[in-house]
Order: sequence, then structure tokens, then C-alpha cells
Amino acid sequence: MQNYRMIVQYDGTRYNGWQKLGDTDNTIQFKLEAVLERLVGSHVEVHGAGRTDAGVHARGQSAQFRLTDDQQNRVLKLLEQGSDTDEARAGEGPKEAEDLIKSYLNRYLPDDIGVLSVQKAAPRFHSRYNASSKHYRYRIGTNRAAHVFDRKYVYEYEGKLDVAAMKVATIKLRGEHDFSSFNGNSRMKKSRVKTIYNIRITETEDEIDLDFFGSGFLQYMVRILVGTLIEVGEGKRDPQSIDSLLEARDRRLAGPTAPACGLTLEEVRYN
Amino acid sequence: MQNYRMIVQYDGTRYNGWQKLGDTDNTIQFKLEAVLERLVGSHVEVHGAGRTDAGVHARGQSAQFRLTDDQQNRVLKLLEQGSDTDEARAGEGPKEAEDLIKSYLNRYLPDDIGVLSVQKAAPRFHSRYNASSKHYRYRIGTNRAAHVFDRKYVYEYEGKLDVAAMKVATIKLRGEHDFSSFNGNSRMKKSRVKTIYNIRITETEDEIDLDFFGSGFLQYMVRILVGTLIEVGEGKRDPQSIDSLLEARDRRLAGPTAPACGLTLEEVRYN
Repeated sequence: MQNYRMIVQYDGTRYNGWQKLGDTDNTIQFKLEAVLERLVGSHVEVHGAGRTDAGVHARGQSAQFRLTDDQQNRVLKLLEQGSDTDEARAGEGPKEAEDLIKSYLNRYLPDDIGVLSVQKAAPRFHSRYNASSKHYRYRIGTNRAAHVFDRKYVYEYEGKLDVAAMKVATIKLRGEHDFSSFNGNSRMKKSRVKTIYNIRITETEDEIDLDFFGSGFLQYMVRILVGTLIEVGEGKRDPQSIDSLLEARDRRLAGPTAPACGLTLEEVRYN
Repeated sequence: MQNYRMIVQYDGTRYNGWQKLGDTDNTIQFKLEAVLERLVGSHVEVHGAGRTDAGVHARGQSAQFRLTDDQQNRVLKLLEQGSDTDEARAGEGPKEAEDLIKSYLNRYLPDDIGVLSVQKAAPRFHSRYNASSKHYRYRIGTNRAAHVFDRKYVYEYEGKLDVAAMKVATIKLRGEHDFSSFNGNSRMKKSRVKTIYNIRITETEDEIDLDFFGSGFLQYMVRILVGTLIEVGEGKRDPQSIDSLLEARDRRLAGPTAPACGLTLEEVRYN
């Protein structure tokens, strides 16, 4: 058994998210598993650290998969066969199993999914359970004409937002809380207590970027936080009211779920 | 008569270029003219400094148009009407004719075309005839997985390129030459003498960028230069042979036309 970890980036626009119960063909997880199966001849399960929703992007998704001894031997055999080519003799081509897996994935994955690295991992490493923090960025565009080239990765907002008020609200959201008011999946039975280490708001000429750093996030949580912070920025919601909103533990009291296109999983960290 | 200049950026992927003789509906020029006509009630001709080809992008296209007194009066009337709105009283909304034109264009143009600025210009200013230099960038990608988010703006090349040899070739291309060997439009009757001020090649981990600075460029010239430089990088063409290639004035002797997607008009300068 050999465990591997990888960093994956993707344009989530045309996918049903990282994974989906039921019809799963159009997910990032499925695309990765299909290419790995093609490589090793049998099914490989890929686990992602952040199960990004439909339309959400990633620059630094962390994922992990285990190969059985048979599957691993198949990779090693391909590597050995490859060492007998002109490319390999020229010092190019994969030298290790992880190089071969990476280049095979990038050869057969669609253009909107890219594997940035593949590394061997300790046997017990799990990309989701071992993650210590995640960084999500939400981009609010304030000048559509400036985002011609990244229009699919920005949520364009028309109107003025009071960024100072939004910043006050983010301070109230920091720390360990029960985030039930920001939980998009009412059937979720597990703890809704998460820790937000920081929310940073950066205003530039053409956009307002919201960076969320936390121990983990409930389903739709970042986008509901953004929808609520936008209402604060619009003056529809007092930043001081965030305390009582957290206490209420009632999704109906928070703002709307902001559109998926603006959200990107930037990085997953491990201690 | 009022003359205007503007800076326009666009993702050229789905367009037939800046302009096209015959069926012109799917061009950048047509889209701009259609929105201006909607604004002023009659046809307005828009001139671009660089007539980018189908699929070519721009970050800094310079364009220009003249409004007749009637058309200009219509803009001024709308401006006056607008000054009577809540938005205007709040100190927002357009204050000058050029602000109104810019925001109107950005409201009605598709998302893949953006107007970055509109300014009044001297009566005799012409965006094409007065341009003193143009900067085009061609992006050659060397790591497809890294370009998930800008895959439409990079030409992914598989294989190794000898960048040092390419740099030698660029030195030979610099200066004033008859560029007939790099001219993609054989029916073009005008002078094929152009000056290349500089070609800068920058290699990063994931791409090789070629920046072309010149007085002007013939049709397809940048892409034929890129196709020829790639052949130099592949070792198929001696960099020293560029001298005789220029002298030959024969398009058939140069390399292929590189794909449009990698090319972007970055900037147009005026003295």
C-alpha cells in the first residue's frame, strides 16, 4: 500500500463540485479517479481536503489517494518501461513513481483541471482529517470592465459597499463559534463548531477580496458569510448584530448564499 | 464634432477579430459601434490602433471615434437628465460626457469586452495613424497544469525550446527591415518596412513570454515571428539564418503562424 498526496487546481465553472452523491460523473473527484483508474487498471478513491461546491474553484486543493501493492507495481512497471525510451536516456521523463503519476494525470485530465504536485505521503496521512487550516478567497468585483480575463472567477457587484462596516463584522466572526446560522446543509449531524482564525478584507481599485482562514468550513459557510457581509456593507445589517446572529443558530437569519463563481480554495495547511 | 479616444480590453476567443470585411457582426469593432449607436441614435465609426486578428486578445487596445454635433448633443442631454437622479445627487454617476459614454459602453457590452477609459481627444487625433509604437505579448506555455485559469490566453507547447538560440534570433530581427517574409497578407500593397524596437524573451517556470515592441506590425507578423522563433528554439532553424530570411522577402521561407490564443495587444503608445 502506498499513500500519495497531491495539490490540484481547477476552474470549477463547469463541474458539480469536488464530489457529489448520486450522479457523480461531472465532479473533480470523478475526473481524477477516472484517469488514475486508466493508469493503474482498477478503481482508486481520491479524497479532497475541501469538498468544494458546484462552480467553486481551487488553486490549492489538497487531495490524497492510496494505491494497493498491485496498483503500485503497475506504476513501477510503467516507470521501468519508460526508462528504456529516448526521452528517458536524454534525462527527461519521470524518474519516480510520483513524477509518472503527475505527468499521466496532466496528460489525460481536461484543461480546466491541473495537478501541480504529487508526493509520497506517510501511510496514515489523510488530506481531510489531518488538515489544520484552510484558506478560501472570495472576490467581489466592483468594475466589470476590469475583469474581462477573469470574469469567471469574480462575482461582480453593482453598488457601493461600506468596507469599514464589513471589517467590524469580520472581527465578530473570528474565533471559535457554533456556525449553525451559516450552515447550508440542515441535514448535517456533526458539530457545527468551527474556528475562524482570520478574515482579511482587501479593497483595490477594481475589487474587494475577502480572505477566510479557518480550521474548516461547513457547507456553503464561506458563501453565506460573504452574503451576510455584503448586507452589512449595504447598510442593511448592523455589524454589531453578528453576535446575536451567531447565538441564534438559525440559517434563516443570515444573508443569502453568495454566487459560487467568486469563491476559490487557495490553500490547505497541515501541522 | 467631438473626437474621443478610449482604451479597450477584450478576450478575443469568440470574435472574428477587431474588424472584418464582409460579415462583420462578430467583431470587437462592431460590438462597440452597436452600443455607441444605441447611445447616440445613429452610426458611429470606431477605429482601432491595432486590427487584431480572430482569436487575438487585447489588454490595451487604443480606439477612437468622432461624434457629430447632433450625436454629442444627445450625450449632453442624457447627462443633464441624469443629473436629476438620486444617484447624481449622491455625487455618483457620470459628471462628464466621457464618463457617461464609458459607463454606457460597459453596461451594454458583453462581459468579454471592457472599456477601461474614455477621454476627449484633439480633433485631428487618429488612434491608428498617430500611434508611435505597439507592444504585443505572446505567451508560450510550458506547463499546461499551471494554466488552468488562463488556458485561453496561452499557447501550450510540448517539448523543449532553446531559449538562448531564440534570443540570438531576436537580435537579428531588431531594427528597420522589409518584413515581407513575415507578412501574412500577400495582397497587401503598402510598404512592408517596419521597425522592431525590441523583442524581449522572459522564461519562467511555466512559460516563455515573447514581448514585441515595434512601430507597427503587418498582418499575422507577430505570430509568424513566433512560429519562426519556435523553430529556432527547436533547433530546426539556425538563428544566423534570420538575416537571409529577411532578405528573401518570401513568406514561404518563414515558420508557421503561431496560434492566435497566445497573442495579446498590451499597449499602444503615442508620441
